[in-house]
Amino acid sequence: MGDLLGVAVLGAGHMGADHIRRLAQVVSGARVVAVADPDAERAENAAAGLTGVTVHTDPTAALDTPGVEAVLVASPGPAHEEALLACFARGLPVLCEKPMVPDSTGALRVAEAEAALGRRLAQIGFMRRYDAGYRRLKTLLDDGSLGRPLMLHCTHRNVSSPAGFTSAMLIDSSVSHEIDAARWLLGQELTAVTVLRPGPSPGAPGGLVDPQFVLFETEREALVDVEVFVNCGFGYQVRCEAVCERGSARIGDEHTMVVTAGGSAAQEVAQDYLVRFADAYDREVQAWVDATRRGQVTGPDVWDGYAASVVAEAGVRALRTGRRTAVELAPRPGSRQPGTAR
Amino acid sequence: MGDLLGVAVLGAGHMGADHIRRLAQVVSGARVVAVADPDAERAENAAAGLTGVTVHTDPTAALDTPGVEAVLVASPGPAHEEALLACFARGLPVLCEKPMVPDSTGALRVAEAEAALGRRLAQIGFMRRYDAGYRRLKTLLDDGSLGRPLMLHCTHRNVSSPAGFTSAMLIDSSVSHEIDAARWLLGQELTAVTVLRPGPSPGAPGGLVDPQFVLFETEREALVDVEVFVNCGFGYQVRCEAVCERGSARIGDEHTMVVTAGGSAAQEVAQDYLVRFADAYDREVQAWVDATRRGQVTGPDVWDGYAASVVAEAGVRALRTGRRTAVELAPRPGSRQPGTAR
Amino acid sequence: MGDLLGVAVLGAGHMGADHIRRLAQVVSGARVVAVADPDAERAENAAAGLTGVTVHTDPTAALDTPGVEAVLVASPGPAHEEALLACFARGLPVLCEKPMVPDSTGALRVAEAEAALGRRLAQIGFMRRYDAGYRRLKTLLDDGSLGRPLMLHCTHRNVSSPAGFTSAMLIDSSVSHEIDAARWLLGQELTAVTVLRPGPSPGAPGGLVDPQFVLFETEREALVDVEVFVNCGFGYQVRCEAVCERGSARIGDEHTMVVTAGGSAAQEVAQDYLVRFADAYDREVQAWVDATRRGQVTGPDVWDGYAASVVAEAGVRALRTGRRTAVELAPRPGSRQPGTAR
Amino acid sequence: MGDLLGVAVLGAGHMGADHIRRLAQVVSGARVVAVADPDAERAENAAAGLTGVTVHTDPTAALDTPGVEAVLVASPGPAHEEALLACFARGLPVLCEKPMVPDSTGALRVAEAEAALGRRLAQIGFMRRYDAGYRRLKTLLDDGSLGRPLMLHCTHRNVSSPAGFTSAMLIDSSVSHEIDAARWLLGQELTAVTVLRPGPSPGAPGGLVDPQFVLFETEREALVDVEVFVNCGFGYQVRCEAVCERGSARIGDEHTMVVTAGGSAAQEVAQDYLVRFADAYDREVQAWVDATRRGQVTGPDVWDGYAASVVAEAGVRALRTGRRTAVELAPRPGSRQPGTAR
Repeated sequence: MGDLLGVAVLGAGHMGADHIRRLAQVVSGARVVAVADPDAERAENAAAGLTGVTVHTDPTAALDTPGVEAVLVASPGPAHEEALLACFARGLPVLCEKPMVPDSTGALRVAEAEAALGRRLAQIGFMRRYDAGYRRLKTLLDDGSLGRPLMLHCTHRNVSSPAGFTSAMLIDSSVSHEIDAARWLLGQELTAVTVLRPGPSPGAPGGLVDPQFVLFETEREALVDVEVFVNCGFGYQVRCEAVCERGSARIGDEHTMVVTAGGSAAQEVAQDYLVRFADAYDREVQAWVDATRRGQVTGPDVWDGYAASVVAEAGVRALRTGRRTAVELAPRPGSRQPGTAR
Repeated sequence: MGDLLGVAVLGAGHMGADHIRRLAQVVSGARVVAVADPDAERAENAAAGLTGVTVHTDPTAALDTPGVEAVLVASPGPAHEEALLACFARGLPVLCEKPMVPDSTGALRVAEAEAALGRRLAQIGFMRRYDAGYRRLKTLLDDGSLGRPLMLHCTHRNVSSPAGFTSAMLIDSSVSHEIDAARWLLGQELTAVTVLRPGPSPGAPGGLVDPQFVLFETEREALVDVEVFVNCGFGYQVRCEAVCERGSARIGDEHTMVVTAGGSAAQEVAQDYLVRFADAYDREVQAWVDATRRGQVTGPDVWDGYAASVVAEAGVRALRTGRRTAVELAPRPGSRQPGTAR
Repeated sequence: MGDLLGVAVLGAGHMGADHIRRLAQVVSGARVVAVADPDAERAENAAAGLTGVTVHTDPTAALDTPGVEAVLVASPGPAHEEALLACFARGLPVLCEKPMVPDSTGALRVAEAEAALGRRLAQIGFMRRYDAGYRRLKTLLDDGSLGRPLMLHCTHRNVSSPAGFTSAMLIDSSVSHEIDAARWLLGQELTAVTVLRPGPSPGAPGGLVDPQFVLFETEREALVDVEVFVNCGFGYQVRCEAVCERGSARIGDEHTMVVTAGGSAAQEVAQDYLVRFADAYDREVQAWVDATRRGQVTGPDVWDGYAASVVAEAGVRALRTGRRTAVELAPRPGSRQPGTAR
Repeated sequence: MGDLLGVAVLGAGHMGADHIRRLAQVVSGARVVAVADPDAERAENAAAGLTGVTVHTDPTAALDTPGVEAVLVASPGPAHEEALLACFARGLPVLCEKPMVPDSTGALRVAEAEAALGRRLAQIGFMRRYDAGYRRLKTLLDDGSLGRPLMLHCTHRNVSSPAGFTSAMLIDSSVSHEIDAARWLLGQELTAVTVLRPGPSPGAPGGLVDPQFVLFETEREALVDVEVFVNCGFGYQVRCEAVCERGSARIGDEHTMVVTAGGSAAQEVAQDYLVRFADAYDREVQAWVDATRRGQVTGPDVWDGYAASVVAEAGVRALRTGRRTAVELAPRPGSRQPGTAR
C-alpha cells in the first residue's frame, strides 16, 4: 500500500468529529481532505489542527474536492439518501453511518441505485460486526459446534436517553443495532416483531415508553428477544446470549478489572457506547480504509441497511398497535431471489 | 423444642423416598412414623433401616397411625386433593409437594376447604423460595434499593426430559417453578401468558415443542420471560435476572470452583436439580419441621398452589392456541378482597 | 438409626453456644444433654430453651452426666488437653475445636494417649474439609486429571482482627486453617516455613504485623503460599488456587448474586466466617453425629491436630527470626513409620 | 500532524516483521523507509509489498537512509547497545524492544550516554504499560482510593517454552515483564529477590527449573510474588492482583465470551502473547509514533531498561544460589539523587 486514501467526511457533529479524529490519528492509511457541515464553524472546529483539509458547507463541494477518493457519511439520517446517491454518481466508495436511510422507501431507492451500478460502493456503519465479542460469537455460531441457534437473548441498556428521544427511537435508533446483529449472527431475515411494554420506569422522561421488550421471529424459526432500557441509570450494557441446540454462548460481561473493596467484588460497567465500542469503531474504519485501498468493498451492505429500516418500521408499528407485525421485504434489487440476510 | 415431630409420608417414589431420607438423616427435630404407598414393596424399601415406622398401602391408615403429628405428601399430583382434605379433616399440618392439585378446580376446592377451617394447615412445596440465591434476590427486591422490578428474565434448562414428557409439561411441570418464583419475588399476580416456539431443537424427542419461550404479564405491568429448554444437553441451569428501575440482579451462575485447563477457564454446571437445589430442599423441610413444632404454618400457601395451577393451565392453552391468554383467578376464599400474591 | 445421640458440650462461649444451637436445631440425630462452662450464667444462657439438659461449671461433671454418649469440646484451647484426656479415659467419642492443643508438646501427649487406647476417639474441628469448595477441589486433585499439585496460592482475609489479636495469632490462629487444608489437599507434610512482612497496613492496630506472607515447603517439593491479612477492611475472603502439572483450579470466589447498579457489576463478599463457612460447620457436625451413631470416628484426627501445632509453632518462630524454619515432627505414635499426612 | 514519520526498523525476525506490519498497516502517521537485518533475504521478505523502503544488512546504513526520522530496534538483545548508541549519535528517537541491553553494565553505559545528551531519545518496549488492564490498574493505584499497595500477586504462564529456553530465561526473559510492571505500578525500586523452586513439572524439558516462584521486596516494603510457569500446557495467562490497604484489584481474567456446553461454562484462555497483548503492542507503537511526531519522548525510559537488567541479574543469581539476593543499582546518571522508579 502506498499513498494515503483521501477521505471526505460529511457531517461534523459528535460522530463526524470523532471519525475525523479517528481517520487523522488512529487509523492507518488515510487522510482527511475535505469536511462538510451546514454549520461552517462546526466544520472548521472539527478540521482544526489538520493540514491539507478543505472545509465546506455544501456536501457536494466536499465530494468534488481534488484528492477525494472515498467518503464517510456522518451527517443526520435524513441527509443520507442524497449523500449516498451523490457518491454513487461519482463512483466514490462510501462508509455511511447508520441508519443508512431512515425510511424504508428511501432505503430501497439507495439499494436499487447501487444495484443499477453493477458493483458495490457502500459499506453501512453497523459497527458491532467489528466488536471482538460479536466477532467471536459469530465465528462460534458459524463453526457449527453448538448446533443451530434457536434463540438470541439480547440486552441493550443506556444510562439515560438524550433530550428529544422518543419511544419510537428505542426501536429505530437503539434496537436497530440488535436488528442488524441478529440478521448477521443468524444469517436469516427477521419476519415478524412484537413489542411489549413493561413498566414504564419512573427514571424515563414523561411519556417515554421505556423499557421495551421486543420479540423478533426469523425465517427459520429462531426467536430474538431484546430488552431495551435507555434510562436504566447504571451503565451502558450490551449483551447477547445465543442459545443453540447443544450449548449457549454469552458476550457482554467483559471487564478489565475486578475491584474488591467495601464488601463487594466489582467489575466496572462502561457508561458510554464510545467506551464500550471504541475498538469496534476503530476496527470498522480501519477495515473500510484497508478494503478501499485494495479496491474492494466489504462489510454490511445496502441490503443490510434496507432490511434494518424495514424491520425498524415494523417494530415502531408493533409498538404503537401492541400487535405482532409482519416484516415485508421488497425483492432484492438486482436479484431474482427474494432477499436474504448474509 | 422437646420431642421429635412424628411425620407420616404419603408416597414412597423418587421424591417420597428422598424426603424420608431427609427427615431421618438430615433434618433436625423430626422422625418418620408412617409411610404409605399403593406399592407395598416400595413403601417397605423406603422405610428400611428406620425404627418405629409403620408401613401402609392406604394413606388414611398412615394418617391415623398413633404418633402422627404432621404429614408430608409426596404422592403423584392426582392424589393430592384427597390427601390434603384428609389432613384438614384431622387437623394435621401438611407439607404438600407441587403441584398442589394439578387442575385448578380441585386446587380451588382445597383452598376453600382450608379457608373453611379458619386456620392454615398446608405448606406447598415450592422449594425455590428456600434456595440461597432466590432468598438473596427476594431480600434485595424487598429492600427497595434497586427500585421496583420491571422485568424478570428467567432460564430453565434441563439436560434431557424424562420419557413421556409432553409439550404441556414444559409449562405445568417445569415453568410452574418460575410461575411461583415470579409471584413470590414480585408480590404480584400474573395476569396473562403468551407462549412462543423457537426451534424445535433436534435434541427433543419427536413432536416435543422444546424449547419454549413463555411471557407472563403481571397486575402491575411487570414482564416475566422464561426460556424453558428441557433437552438442552449440557446441564441443569436455573437463572433469574431481575431488572429494576435503578439496577439489575442476577442469580444462577454460582459455582464452587473454576478449573483452568486445556485452553479454557471453566465452571462446572450442575447436571441435576437434586444437585442444584439440594440445600433448598433441606432448608424447606427443616423450616417446615421447625414451624410445625412451634405450632405455626409458614411458607407458600394453598392460594399459591391454586394460582400456580390457574396460570399453568392458561399457559398450556396459550401454547396450544398460539395466543395471548388471560389468567382468571377466582376470588380468594375467606377474603373479601380479590386474591393477591404474597 | 434410632435414638438421638446424647452430647455434652464443653464451653459455652461464642463457638460453644453456636454448636449447641446447631445440635439442637440444625443437625439430625443428636440432642444436648449437658453443657459445661466455668461461667455458670453463660452455660445457663446457652442451654436456655432446651429440655433435658443439665448445666455445669465442672467439665468432668458434664462428662459424667447420664445419657452422655459423645462430647463436643468448644472451650478455650488451653483447656483442650485435659478435656480430651478425660474423654479418652471414659471412652467417649469427641469432636474437639481447633487448635486441638495449642502447644505441640501437649498435642503430642494427646496423640500418644489416643494411640495407647488402640482406637480412634477424637475428630478435630478443621471445618474447611467440609466446605463444598474445598471438597470439590480435594476430589479434583485426587482424581489426578490435572496431574500433581505444584503450588497452592492461598488468601485469608478478615475485615478486622478482634481486640488482643497478636502477630503470632495471624499464624497460629488464622493460617492454622491453611496449614491443615494444605496438608489435607496435598496429602503431604509441610517441612519448612518462611514468613515475609509486607506493609504493615495502617489499618492494623499499632504494632500488629499485618499482612503477612507465609511460605510453606512440603515433603514432595510443592510450595504453599498464604497471604494472611486480618485487617483488610473489606470482607472475609478465603481463596485457594491449586496449580498442577496440567491445569489449575481455584475456589473462593463463589457468590450468590451479581448486582449491577451505579456503574458496577458486583458480587457480595461475606463479612464473617460464620457466613462463609456456615454450611461447612453444619456438615462437619452432622458428619460427626452420623459417624458416632454408626460407631465410627472419621475426619481429621489427632495427628492432624498435632502436625498443625508443630507447623504453627515453626511459623511463629519464622515470623520472629525472619528465617526459613524447618518443621520437625515427632515419630507418629503407635506407628513404625514417620508420620504422614492423610 | 502532517507528513508520515519515516521509520527505520532494525531486525526483521519474528518481532521485527510484526512491527513492520504494524507500522505499515495498523498504526497511523508512520511509514517504514528502511529495514536492516544481517540476513538479507529475511529483510527483503519483511519489506515485501511496501513501497519506498530500502533494505540493508548493515544497520548503520539503514539509520543513514534519507527520510529516516526515528528508529525501531527489534534486533536480538546483544545488538541493542550498539544500535542505541548509534541512534543517540544521530539524534534519532528510538523505540527499543526489551531487554534494552541484556547485561546491566552495558545497560548502564546506554543510560549514561543518553544522560550525556541532555535529553531523552529512547523509549523501551515494555508493552504491558499499554495494556488496557494494566493501565486501568495503574490508574486505580495512583488515584489512592484503595490506599497504598502492600502486595502484588502475579501469574505468568505459557503453554510451552521454545527450544533452548533456559532456567535463567524464566527470570530474565519472562519475569522481566513483571519486574518492569511492578516498578511501574508501585513507583518503587525492587531491592531484593528470592527464588523458590516448586516442582519441577514433568511437562518441562529435562533440567528446566519450571515453575519458579519469585519474591521481590521493594524500597517501601511492598512484596511482589510471581508464579512463572512456562510449560503449564493450558494457556497464556498473565494476571496481577494488587492488594492495598483498603481493597484489592485483579486483572488478567478477561474474556470475550462464556460458552456453556458439555457440563461447563467456559471462558477461552489465550494461547499466545501476541493474542493476549495484540492491542498493547498496537497502542505502544501508536503512542511512540504520536509522541515522536510531536517532538516528545514518553513511556518507559533507559533507567527502566537498566533497572530491569539489574533486577533480572539478581534474580538469576538468586535462582542459582537459592538465597535472598540484594539488588544494587548504580546512581542514576545525570542525577544527584539515587535512582527511583517512576
